[in-house]
Amino acid sequence: MGAAIAANLLRASHEVAVWNRSPDKAAPLLNLGAVSAATPRELAADREVVFTMLADDAALRAVVAGDDGLLAGLSPGAIHVSMSTIGVATADEIASFHRLRGQHFISAPVFGRPQAAAEAKLFVVAAGNAADLQRVKPLLQAVGQKLFVVGETPSGANLVKLCGNFMILAAIESLGEAMALADKRGVAKSKLLEVLTGTLFDAPVYRTYGAILIEERFRPAGFAAPLGLKDMRLAAAEAQHARLPMPVLNVLQEQLLRTIDREGADIDWSGIALTAASST
Amino acid sequence: MGAAIAANLLRASHEVAVWNRSPDKAAPLLNLGAVSAATPRELAADREVVFTMLADDAALRAVVAGDDGLLAGLSPGAIHVSMSTIGVATADEIASFHRLRGQHFISAPVFGRPQAAAEAKLFVVAAGNAADLQRVKPLLQAVGQKLFVVGETPSGANLVKLCGNFMILAAIESLGEAMALADKRGVAKSKLLEVLTGTLFDAPVYRTYGAILIEERFRPAGFAAPLGLKDMRLAAAEAQHARLPMPVLNVLQEQLLRTIDREGADIDWSGIALTAASST
Amino acid sequence: MGAAIAANLLRASHEVAVWNRSPDKAAPLLNLGAVSAATPRELAADREVVFTMLADDAALRAVVAGDDGLLAGLSPGAIHVSMSTIGVATADEIASFHRLRGQHFISAPVFGRPQAAAEAKLFVVAAGNAADLQRVKPLLQAVGQKLFVVGETPSGANLVKLCGNFMILAAIESLGEAMALADKRGVAKSKLLEVLTGTLFDAPVYRTYGAILIEERFRPAGFAAPLGLKDMRLAAAEAQHARLPMPVLNVLQEQLLRTIDREGADIDWSGIALTAASST
Amino acid sequence: MGAAIAANLLRASHEVAVWNRSPDKAAPLLNLGAVSAATPRELAADREVVFTMLADDAALRAVVAGDDGLLAGLSPGAIHVSMSTIGVATADEIASFHRLRGQHFISAPVFGRPQAAAEAKLFVVAAGNAADLQRVKPLLQAVGQKLFVVGETPSGANLVKLCGNFMILAAIESLGEAMALADKRGVAKSKLLEVLTGTLFDAPVYRTYGAILIEERFRPAGFAAPLGLKDMRLAAAEAQHARLPMPVLNVLQEQLLRTIDREGADIDWSGIALTAASST
Repeated sequence: MGAAIAANLLRASHEVAVWNRSPDKAAPLLNLGAVSAATPRELAADREVVFTMLADDAALRAVVAGDDGLLAGLSPGAIHVSMSTIGVATADEIASFHRLRGQHFISAPVFGRPQAAAEAKLFVVAAGNAADLQRVKPLLQAVGQKLFVVGETPSGANLVKLCGNFMILAAIESLGEAMALADKRGVAKSKLLEVLTGTLFDAPVYRTYGAILIEERFRPAGFAAPLGLKDMRLAAAEAQHARLPMPVLNVLQEQLLRTIDREGADIDWSGIALTAASST
Repeated sequence: MGAAIAANLLRASHEVAVWNRSPDKAAPLLNLGAVSAATPRELAADREVVFTMLADDAALRAVVAGDDGLLAGLSPGAIHVSMSTIGVATADEIASFHRLRGQHFISAPVFGRPQAAAEAKLFVVAAGNAADLQRVKPLLQAVGQKLFVVGETPSGANLVKLCGNFMILAAIESLGEAMALADKRGVAKSKLLEVLTGTLFDAPVYRTYGAILIEERFRPAGFAAPLGLKDMRLAAAEAQHARLPMPVLNVLQEQLLRTIDREGADIDWSGIALTAASST
Repeated sequence: MGAAIAANLLRASHEVAVWNRSPDKAAPLLNLGAVSAATPRELAADREVVFTMLADDAALRAVVAGDDGLLAGLSPGAIHVSMSTIGVATADEIASFHRLRGQHFISAPVFGRPQAAAEAKLFVVAAGNAADLQRVKPLLQAVGQKLFVVGETPSGANLVKLCGNFMILAAIESLGEAMALADKRGVAKSKLLEVLTGTLFDAPVYRTYGAILIEERFRPAGFAAPLGLKDMRLAAAEAQHARLPMPVLNVLQEQLLRTIDREGADIDWSGIALTAASST
Repeated sequence: MGAAIAANLLRASHEVAVWNRSPDKAAPLLNLGAVSAATPRELAADREVVFTMLADDAALRAVVAGDDGLLAGLSPGAIHVSMSTIGVATADEIASFHRLRGQHFISAPVFGRPQAAAEAKLFVVAAGNAADLQRVKPLLQAVGQKLFVVGETPSGANLVKLCGNFMILAAIESLGEAMALADKRGVAKSKLLEVLTGTLFDAPVYRTYGAILIEERFRPAGFAAPLGLKDMRLAAAEAQHARLPMPVLNVLQEQLLRTIDREGADIDWSGIALTAASST
């Protein structure tokens, strides 16, 4: 994802420096005109804006606050735009790290598969200081098709991202349960999907995943089940903090665990439909 | 619903006779040119097609197989079009009643609130013999905006209708859980909804119910919680028959019961969002 | 079960006639002094008390109300003692059948495996008219170690039996979940069980099933998972009728279905512990 | 709890020094012969064994590793016996703190209400180094009726304690569901309990909580619902770590949250039976 985003920034004629834990992954970007940095700290030095796109909370924390991390390199007034899907508490923590140093922080997680990133068609959900958002807006528009601003607290954008992933998986699970029931009673899954998307469910989430479920395209994973589980857990941590019972979220976590147990960790998160369809 | 459908048939220049348990409910239709029948049996006599729209399985069974019911009046070769939301087993049973008498049977349940019925904008999901469907097609098109044919077994249409209602309530519950979580963490429900409907969830079910949840328009009920519960139970009966575990369906039934307990039986089924938002 | 009960009645010097759908199953009882009847109707003729022990609601209904059934043979004032685990509504229905004919009806389902039946160590839970219970008390005591009278409405005993089976499976599932967790973290299942049964859980249900879970003795089934599922469904039907959400009961039904899907229909109902222990 | 335990140690003729955040709570112990310490550090100095009994993970961590904490005072070779109900990871962490300083650590959480502590009738579940356990055995026996040793890793005892609390609450919830169902159908809760405890459920957990549920003795709380919730969350954290779906544990967390929402935070954890009994 990060490479596709950087490429789009280059295409929009921005000067871009890049850093990746595996330097060879950055090579294609150098051909597009990017310069290379040896560490996050070096990358951040003298930059106005730094984007990060990392796998999880721990990876982001290491890149920001580890040895030779962003915190040590970023100038006061410069902006860190975090696009990773991370927990709300981690976003709050990183925001406070930057604040202490006079650095600015924007959370801007994205919706979209790698293909959408390559085509600059991501949906970007951003939150942070209004003036900062104004400054980075052209950059965010260069990498996505649509920008949503959800508030002034950066971690609010992370919460919206987690809610979105929860909603997607809830849609997949309920569709999987309904398709399994229809199938059992002799109604083709495709007929059910046609009715749903032809009436109240005329939305990308149902069309995209409906086709995946019908064709059973669960491998290779577009978004692997363990990553989906990680996001459900980040959402559950917030629910726990808010003392909010979320029974559907609990079901989704259980079904993902069962799916990974049945199918292996390389299955797409939409493979929960296989678990939903298991019957005696 | 039945009155709106009959009115649209009259507007489409069909000859219509009507019967209702409460005769005064039929009065406005008489003004539109309908004739009145004293019993379902009398109504069915010499008619090519009879529509029924009733509250539940028991009401339909009584009108069809009770004293002076449709079975006794309908001519061989005539068609009974059942639009009620009923169980799959009941649809199978009624189909066999008609078959024994050489009468034909189409299941054609609909999606849409009373307002949609009045405007002939229902979505009609039909199943049955192809030739029969061909004959009633102009009638179904006169009352709805779109017609889906899902197979030759009439009860298949009822199953699709139940799956659809399950999907709607699953969408409401998951949206309710997500909105409650967002709200707890300081993100406006409307912001979350804007992101969802602006990305992968751009569908009527989220726009319509999203607005209801934000404005808390749960009374008067468009579709009362006990009716939703009835439909979830009809779906659960099929799941049980198919030996299919449907954990989200189980959650929905529990949440509806809790909602009726908390809010009373007059609450809209989308009021489960109030239960989802309860926290300590 | 029925054969063991009949044998104990013979041992207690009662005159016993027997009927079984498969006549050869009755043969050992004839050697013990029982006489044979060709039909339930013939069996019931001139008898004071008739016991039934059948597999499910349908089998009991057939034996009672079918051709040559008990209803046709039982004398007014004679008592039908039903020991089967059946639904509450079926018990109510059969009670009313008998009442219409002046016949009496007692529900007396039992707790205990076949071995306990053979040793006259069943627990008998009975309900019905007090005078009738007084009459059959010596018979019930001849087949069980303990008799509980739970009220005057026969079906109340069936409800208690279903609640008991629900409680047993809930104990197994929670024990299975706890043992799986302990095992994952390096604590022996047997250590956990020793602590539980040595403190607040010093009861036969935990000692018996705890040993089964540790030794994984799930085949041959003492009580097959599909039978357990049937009982959970009978309980769920009552919960639905009472409009009572029972989330643990829903979990148990789901886990049984998953277990039958994973392990086959010949697994003991305690095999849900295998499902509970599955993890990634 | 801590005061009762200290009193029993004094009664067994041990020399005891005490420290409590609220010094007046220690006063009655001084009358029994205890000496007072100003800080945990002072308390630990020159002691062979130090017991801690604290409310939660954070409180224990503060007493151990905070300013003037146990770590700073305890001599090499001395033993810290932790009786608090805490998370497994916290126990591991504290064990490693002590190890680094050559101090020894035993986890010895207990089952039993304050009354049981006063009467030295606690059940003690201990884990740790065998030689250390041998040394503290007389002390543990002085405060409890029974000692279980579950392994050499201290945190194993904490896991067993959490599993035990999970099992207790699972028993309460399932009993609550069953009693609610029985009650709805006209069978007295006490009759159901009599059958259960007279057959397979003849255990303290059912007798004790069965009586509480029948008499609705939910206030004052013996063990408040928020404390129960804390323990379920500690268990859930372990389940998450072990990648183990625990559906009954999820139900219990949801029901506790609903109960606190309905009844307030001062309700006993067995008050989940009120939530289980709510129906429409």
